[in-house]
Amino acid sequence: MKGIYLDNAATTPTDPRVIEAMMPYFTQIYGNASSMHTYGTRSKEALENSRAKIASYIGCQPDELLFTSSGSESNNMALKGIAFANRNKGNHIIVSAIEHDCILNTCKWLEEEGFSITLVPVDSYGTLDLQALERAIKPETILVSVMYANNEIGTIQPIAEIGAICRKHNILFHSDACQSFGKLPIDVVKSNIDLLTINAHKIYGPKGIGALYVRKNTRITPILHGGGQENGLRSSTENIAVIVCFAKAAELAIKDMDNENIKLFTLQKSIIDDLSENMEGFYLNGHPNNRIPGHLSFSFQGLEGDTIRLLLMLDEMGIAVSAGSACSSNHGGDGTSHVLKAIGLNQFEARGAIRVSMGRYTTDSDIEIFKKTIKQKVLQLNSIFSH
Amino acid sequence: MKGIYLDNAATTPTDPRVIEAMMPYFTQIYGNASSMHTYGTRSKEALENSRAKIASYIGCQPDELLFTSSGSESNNMALKGIAFANRNKGNHIIVSAIEHDCILNTCKWLEEEGFSITLVPVDSYGTLDLQALERAIKPETILVSVMYANNEIGTIQPIAEIGAICRKHNILFHSDACQSFGKLPIDVVKSNIDLLTINAHKIYGPKGIGALYVRKNTRITPILHGGGQENGLRSSTENIAVIVCFAKAAELAIKDMDNENIKLFTLQKSIIDDLSENMEGFYLNGHPNNRIPGHLSFSFQGLEGDTIRLLLMLDEMGIAVSAGSACSSNHGGDGTSHVLKAIGLNQFEARGAIRVSMGRYTTDSDIEIFKKTIKQKVLQLNSIFSH
Repeated sequence: MKGIYLDNAATTPTDPRVIEAMMPYFTQIYGNASSMHTYGTRSKEALENSRAKIASYIGCQPDELLFTSSGSESNNMALKGIAFANRNKGNHIIVSAIEHDCILNTCKWLEEEGFSITLVPVDSYGTLDLQALERAIKPETILVSVMYANNEIGTIQPIAEIGAICRKHNILFHSDACQSFGKLPIDVVKSNIDLLTINAHKIYGPKGIGALYVRKNTRITPILHGGGQENGLRSSTENIAVIVCFAKAAELAIKDMDNENIKLFTLQKSIIDDLSENMEGFYLNGHPNNRIPGHLSFSFQGLEGDTIRLLLMLDEMGIAVSAGSACSSNHGGDGTSHVLKAIGLNQFEARGAIRVSMGRYTTDSDIEIFKKTIKQKVLQLNSIFSH
Repeated sequence: MKGIYLDNAATTPTDPRVIEAMMPYFTQIYGNASSMHTYGTRSKEALENSRAKIASYIGCQPDELLFTSSGSESNNMALKGIAFANRNKGNHIIVSAIEHDCILNTCKWLEEEGFSITLVPVDSYGTLDLQALERAIKPETILVSVMYANNEIGTIQPIAEIGAICRKHNILFHSDACQSFGKLPIDVVKSNIDLLTINAHKIYGPKGIGALYVRKNTRITPILHGGGQENGLRSSTENIAVIVCFAKAAELAIKDMDNENIKLFTLQKSIIDDLSENMEGFYLNGHPNNRIPGHLSFSFQGLEGDTIRLLLMLDEMGIAVSAGSACSSNHGGDGTSHVLKAIGLNQFEARGAIRVSMGRYTTDSDIEIFKKTIKQKVLQLNSIFSH
């Protein structure tokens, strides 16, 4: 499919080098990694090499990293697993108000199961209010979960500071790093992170593979029981082909991170400069600087309710952007974004924002076409409403 | 890797036709199926086509089938999901004594959560005792889970009769069909099945993809909360590439099922005939006829404790078989098989059995070499012990 794909925060195409790395694992090294014969031991070797590689990229030990089927599964496991295993210590969990639905909806379910949840607010840039976090901590608090960087508005959180607060109060700290792994440096030891969620399909790896770092000696209950794979913490036949892919995708992303980020910052700046200069009512959502490289969220005053219309007009021109997070389209509800509301937008403004997420395959020419097209389409929308 | 792979019950290589079907979904149709733009809608279309195809093979409606990351996840979801959603009706669950670890270990966890579990015994062939099943039913029973065919010993259960009993008592019936889907006909309506687990990597599809059929209007709690995918029942970015593979693998398996089964029965019979005629102490485990095509479990009297040694001797000759289920190698424990014990083998005999599971790529010549080699190796083992 030809087009200009600017929705890399939703998912990315798989890098051909990653696909190449994967191919032997379908027809040659296909054994069950739990089997005792050579087919099994060769798969097991690929599994452990991949684990060691990914572990090294976040600064943990290989045996502290377990593979899951996705970022959503890792996040579910982090919250439910810590909650169920530490009930005797307390029933209180703190999360930020702008977490991904898989954190917030897991929290809703945990409330039904007798846990108590506090949502900590963020400021108008989407940065966590650290004083509010500290005030929210109670003797029965067992876990704090704050995402590394936000999927909708791109704001990066002060992770090391949050980690220090949690450590001071002896509370476990989980961070969902699906939007930042491979794009921003992560060191779980330095940042005092006890659990970290990462996945592959946001960094040019395949869908269907994630990982959860769990600091050694952390009590956690599995959410998948069974054959005892992944140290007894995540049972299911090990998914070697995509695990190898994940390691390859991570390697490629980490290796080229600095160059890639320079390119993405430049493209990002060129969009901001153009639209803020030429389009009345243009405003950015999220932090102006402290944000995911290549990620932009913006709106046009008065047109917030027409974000989806604008998205579809761009789509007709072959340009793919998002109106928020991909997942949010599955919900009914009033169609407003909990993230945009949390940064202080009103009910009308929170109905949508254009999210542009550039990536490895985005070219200067893509962005030139994008800028030209969105300006045209916004003017078109404005003229519809002024008549 | 060259060799004779006779462990298709643990996992299978991926059929090249399945790989071919998958390839466009990495670099061309890679959109997030929850995205509103064309990249997303094209993925969504592939998702729904695959769902409809697989649904048709088990006789359910497309919206009754949800995709998961594996058979283990489907089984966990069936049991935990039904248990948590129906706690107000009762807390009692019945399973057979020979279920896969992912059922049995889920049951152990459910017991910790306040549920009560009854294991129903099987006869010496591994066939469920239907009278014992009926006796086990109580007013507070909410679910019966019995696998379609057993992974270790191959015995096929009287699924339709179990379904009829459950329906009579108005109890939900779940069946784990990972070892039978694509090998035996399945009709969830005729067999009164309310929940069915299937997966792809046992039928020449990739690892990391499974499905759970849930009969319409069945109350079930998700185990993965989040973005609301799969009708709100299984949140996580839809894994299109392997979902398409799953549908393709199922199509190929179903289309050629009858021919394939004739081939496998013939090979199976040739092993039984040869070993029972020529090897003293040879005995079969499981049902003599009512078993998975191409699946054999057998032992040599007195050598049961040396199954793993025999497995490794065969492995050195390039022949891969199993000593039970692949997953069981992850457990500590006393090394005995709960399935072999359930069919009445003693503590020593239950230490192991050779499982031979033939498949699509097994040739006559493979089986000739296998028969010759295993006879040699068993004689060698016997001579070690007689000296």
